[in-house]
Amino acid sequence: MINIGVIGYGYWGPNIIRNFSGIKGVKIVSLCDTNHDALNRARGIYPNLKTTIDYREITTSPEIDAVAVITPVFTHYELAKNALENGKHIFVEKPFTSTVKEAEELIELAEKKNLKIMVDHTFLFTGAVRKIKELIDDNVLGDLYYYDSIRVNLGLFQHDINVIWDLAPHDLSIMDYVIKDRPAAISANGVDHFGRELENIAYVTVYFNNNMIAHFNVNWLSPVKIRQTLIGGEKKMLVWNDLELDEKIKVYNKGVNIETKEGLYNLLVDYRSGDMLSPRVDQTEALKLEAEYFLDCISRNSTPINDGHAGLRIVKMLEAANMSLRNRGKLINY
Amino acid sequence: MINIGVIGYGYWGPNIIRNFSGIKGVKIVSLCDTNHDALNRARGIYPNLKTTIDYREITTSPEIDAVAVITPVFTHYELAKNALENGKHIFVEKPFTSTVKEAEELIELAEKKNLKIMVDHTFLFTGAVRKIKELIDDNVLGDLYYYDSIRVNLGLFQHDINVIWDLAPHDLSIMDYVIKDRPAAISANGVDHFGRELENIAYVTVYFNNNMIAHFNVNWLSPVKIRQTLIGGEKKMLVWNDLELDEKIKVYNKGVNIETKEGLYNLLVDYRSGDMLSPRVDQTEALKLEAEYFLDCISRNSTPINDGHAGLRIVKMLEAANMSLRNRGKLINY
Amino acid sequence: MINIGVIGYGYWGPNIIRNFSGIKGVKIVSLCDTNHDALNRARGIYPNLKTTIDYREITTSPEIDAVAVITPVFTHYELAKNALENGKHIFVEKPFTSTVKEAEELIELAEKKNLKIMVDHTFLFTGAVRKIKELIDDNVLGDLYYYDSIRVNLGLFQHDINVIWDLAPHDLSIMDYVIKDRPAAISANGVDHFGRELENIAYVTVYFNNNMIAHFNVNWLSPVKIRQTLIGGEKKMLVWNDLELDEKIKVYNKGVNIETKEGLYNLLVDYRSGDMLSPRVDQTEALKLEAEYFLDCISRNSTPINDGHAGLRIVKMLEAANMSLRNRGKLINY
Amino acid sequence: MINIGVIGYGYWGPNIIRNFSGIKGVKIVSLCDTNHDALNRARGIYPNLKTTIDYREITTSPEIDAVAVITPVFTHYELAKNALENGKHIFVEKPFTSTVKEAEELIELAEKKNLKIMVDHTFLFTGAVRKIKELIDDNVLGDLYYYDSIRVNLGLFQHDINVIWDLAPHDLSIMDYVIKDRPAAISANGVDHFGRELENIAYVTVYFNNNMIAHFNVNWLSPVKIRQTLIGGEKKMLVWNDLELDEKIKVYNKGVNIETKEGLYNLLVDYRSGDMLSPRVDQTEALKLEAEYFLDCISRNSTPINDGHAGLRIVKMLEAANMSLRNRGKLINY
Repeated sequence: MINIGVIGYGYWGPNIIRNFSGIKGVKIVSLCDTNHDALNRARGIYPNLKTTIDYREITTSPEIDAVAVITPVFTHYELAKNALENGKHIFVEKPFTSTVKEAEELIELAEKKNLKIMVDHTFLFTGAVRKIKELIDDNVLGDLYYYDSIRVNLGLFQHDINVIWDLAPHDLSIMDYVIKDRPAAISANGVDHFGRELENIAYVTVYFNNNMIAHFNVNWLSPVKIRQTLIGGEKKMLVWNDLELDEKIKVYNKGVNIETKEGLYNLLVDYRSGDMLSPRVDQTEALKLEAEYFLDCISRNSTPINDGHAGLRIVKMLEAANMSLRNRGKLINY
Repeated sequence: MINIGVIGYGYWGPNIIRNFSGIKGVKIVSLCDTNHDALNRARGIYPNLKTTIDYREITTSPEIDAVAVITPVFTHYELAKNALENGKHIFVEKPFTSTVKEAEELIELAEKKNLKIMVDHTFLFTGAVRKIKELIDDNVLGDLYYYDSIRVNLGLFQHDINVIWDLAPHDLSIMDYVIKDRPAAISANGVDHFGRELENIAYVTVYFNNNMIAHFNVNWLSPVKIRQTLIGGEKKMLVWNDLELDEKIKVYNKGVNIETKEGLYNLLVDYRSGDMLSPRVDQTEALKLEAEYFLDCISRNSTPINDGHAGLRIVKMLEAANMSLRNRGKLINY
Repeated sequence: MINIGVIGYGYWGPNIIRNFSGIKGVKIVSLCDTNHDALNRARGIYPNLKTTIDYREITTSPEIDAVAVITPVFTHYELAKNALENGKHIFVEKPFTSTVKEAEELIELAEKKNLKIMVDHTFLFTGAVRKIKELIDDNVLGDLYYYDSIRVNLGLFQHDINVIWDLAPHDLSIMDYVIKDRPAAISANGVDHFGRELENIAYVTVYFNNNMIAHFNVNWLSPVKIRQTLIGGEKKMLVWNDLELDEKIKVYNKGVNIETKEGLYNLLVDYRSGDMLSPRVDQTEALKLEAEYFLDCISRNSTPINDGHAGLRIVKMLEAANMSLRNRGKLINY
Repeated sequence: MINIGVIGYGYWGPNIIRNFSGIKGVKIVSLCDTNHDALNRARGIYPNLKTTIDYREITTSPEIDAVAVITPVFTHYELAKNALENGKHIFVEKPFTSTVKEAEELIELAEKKNLKIMVDHTFLFTGAVRKIKELIDDNVLGDLYYYDSIRVNLGLFQHDINVIWDLAPHDLSIMDYVIKDRPAAISANGVDHFGRELENIAYVTVYFNNNMIAHFNVNWLSPVKIRQTLIGGEKKMLVWNDLELDEKIKVYNKGVNIETKEGLYNLLVDYRSGDMLSPRVDQTEALKLEAEYFLDCISRNSTPINDGHAGLRIVKMLEAANMSLRNRGKLINY
């Protein structure tokens, strides 16, 4: 039995408690939030839940084995560090931390104390992403040409972070998971329309050493919700539309074969266009699988795919993107 | 009666001849192409058409009033210059020229000779773009936040130009037409996957002085065809899906109102979400209207909306985009 | 405060309890189900809920004011009758009863005892149906030509009723609500593919006196889920796609004007094709509104729109459809 | 070389001439239409075409081998009969004739004279229908449960026939082609909204002996264009959306397996839901293939799949549907 304390009951906290509560071998013992209304709402649903406004009651409680940090990102470092120092495993909302340095410190601390860090990259546990991972690992797509994602909708404007830090962690963590290569350089563009110095529209390009390119279009000001990713490979190409009820993933047997002969007009391009297959995608709630996996990683002392290092890789990209953004597209190598 | 000579009978030439032929007051008198098969095909449809493999027969013919240059871009300057020097109005395929310098020269020459230049920005004559222009001119959208377009499909790889020069002129010319403000700086990213030094995927960001931002996603390697533009305004937001048979344009009564109070958590965001209106869009073939307009501009001696200066503005953006592309996103001011 | 007892905790029962529980002035005091697992599940969520396997403990309990009957249709009559006889208001799952006779008896009993009957035609409380009702009432569509609905998907095969009794009550109750005219005759076709004598595919046509026609396509064997209704009016036409997240309703300014002159070839048809408007639709959970409305009707002693008579009208159509179905399309007047 | 004379240059005639003209071994020698404007339009495109307003000049011309009858259906019998009597093969627009009796007579006449009849069921030559035929012939779908088609749009109201005779021949001829079983009975419902005694909305159900059922929804008064067919089989199920540019056909690995045990609640339903495959569909223009096939059948003296008997089978269904329609759904056995 793992006892968990949760810090933060805002937008995502209720989903965390609902999913972890539903797992055999896990008990949510207490919840901290500085907002009394939030605590009241939680107790309305879980009458036996202990609540507090002081997070130290959770991070230092001897009955607690792991702490879920479901708060704004600028608080992650302090809360997670405190929990680790008190010997608790941590489950941290994405993005992992506000800076690369913070992430590195937490990783070091956890390793010293032999504690687990899991960063809540929920999408890795969706049926769609697991299927994409499988297709790429099985070389169905062949060598990859590009990864192109759009994640736009109206709102929710965040108070403390720009649209890249809010929306891109989803796509960056998915790309990081399904693609083995590591980024070489980043260029980002974007603007803030409301005098907040927090961009609400941004475009992030990630270069890889092998000519792969990735691009992320994130926007809080779109009249329509779009959740679409194109992945182009030498052998096949894939479209993932996460808003489709069924047929979220479509794999196209399409491609080009190019022979460049001498002379300008001797380009031979052969376009291949075959069937499209939409594989069945498991519909289990991702957060439920992730919660079970967290328990499993602790029980078996195994390393999560979404461990601190995974969290750090995403924060590195976010930090580089922000630096490029401040310099209007300037290439940031790393 | 205006007599027209056409140079170039490749992919687009047949459409040019078909549409100009159908207009009262216009006569296509001769066609030049260096490819004999092309000339044979043309004569099969238009038995009375004079054909030649020497473009000078067209540019110097005394019976010809205007020359349509429907050839690869790297030939535009020479052909157009020759036609202008011989006193012919010109209708030039997009993009206007390969360089800013060439465009400027042609404009100067035409003005000196009092001849018309029309650049074939066909999309300006579609019902959809005319409706978008009208909505923006009537201030239905309010101040503009962004212009975000995607134009991707499988192929057609061009021999002599990259994907920006092939696909982006459509969207750049539309943006240039519907938006009054002029670009301030450009950042572009992209890659070539086939060792041709011609990018087949690219992302172009255009900054404006007033915080407007534009972005263009062009790709020859997409398994699916997408032709989608989002235009966000303070009052309303618009989605244009050019692949829809009906309902190409949707105008959303959506927006946000943001008040930033002191303190991090005092952000007040008010989201507005009302009806959506899809205005009826005229379905007349754009090239037909454009051909009539060319005749009209010549007859009335008026300046086309898509004159040499419009063509030049697009070439300027293309040149800046290419320069940025070669430097991986480096900002090019202008 | 109204105390409610619920009978039936299968597929729909949990939604009933969740929504009624959330309303001020309502208390769910006890639940009956013959399945012990169901009762255990319910107590897991609502620890204070009394449970029983004997429905009489609910229908006769002095502390209970109203009984919700959320069981298979063949049990409705007995349970509802017992509740009414014991002075309880009833909220009955759709379809109201298995026969017209049963419905008439229950209505008579309720009227004699001055008790409310509400039939759970949930769809009447969706934002989409309320908007459609408003558009028709405001004569936006003009005189109606037709009502054409499709409700198909894979499963859920019901044990005791055919696909008409399972799926069509939704659409029949919506049509009954938004259209003032009453059916004149019904013709239904369909087949059973599994030797169960319960049709799994069926087509129901409803004739009205004024030339309006309605048609219902219901199918448990469709590979795709379709929830689409077309309503054609003299002035405008409407498409309702309930699977759209936004833009569920689209109102087309389209129509025809026909003048028949003498002679076969003197038909003059004028097609009108204008803008399309997709009105914003309220997203509040329908069952929540319906639960509040039930409380409201009891408190104010007012007659629900979905009272026993509404329930009876649907059962009448279902009974006629079944009779026609058994005779392969034979017209049933009524 | 086959010389063809064409009678009728209305909506479809131009497509007939364009496609037959493009085939090696076929020459369109003359055209008849009673409308002088139509003849002028044709000569504008085909300067060498002989034209006439007297169809006998075509049916009796010694230089003509085959006559294409592209006129309103009520004229087919007289024109086709005259052509056959004069020894010409015939290509007749769908539906073949106005009555079963006429069709039978023409078939008998053609057989006696050893002439070919081809009825223009163009859809049989589309890539989509050929692929569906292949999937059914290869038993990919397994035993068929149902064929359910929708063909609706705004207009074109026909002068002389109702919506069933106008739109349903497409779908009936497709069903007739891809499904081996023959109809056992028909029930049809519909109404006329304009006092013309020609229904503009109709629903046709076709019963087969083996429990297969087919349904056709045809409507001239729909605000949106829908061209959708669902075909359910024991092994797989298919959706054909003819308005999709790509992915016209989707084959779903979905189904149900039902075991009925004793007792009402002992129904065991096992739902199967696997991948979806969208096979590539050939995009060649159907009428071009059909024209080549007509030439081929004459040259090789082989029987077309769309011969007089195929035409007759469709007319039989149309006649039965009309009879049922006049009696509001009454079952017509045959």
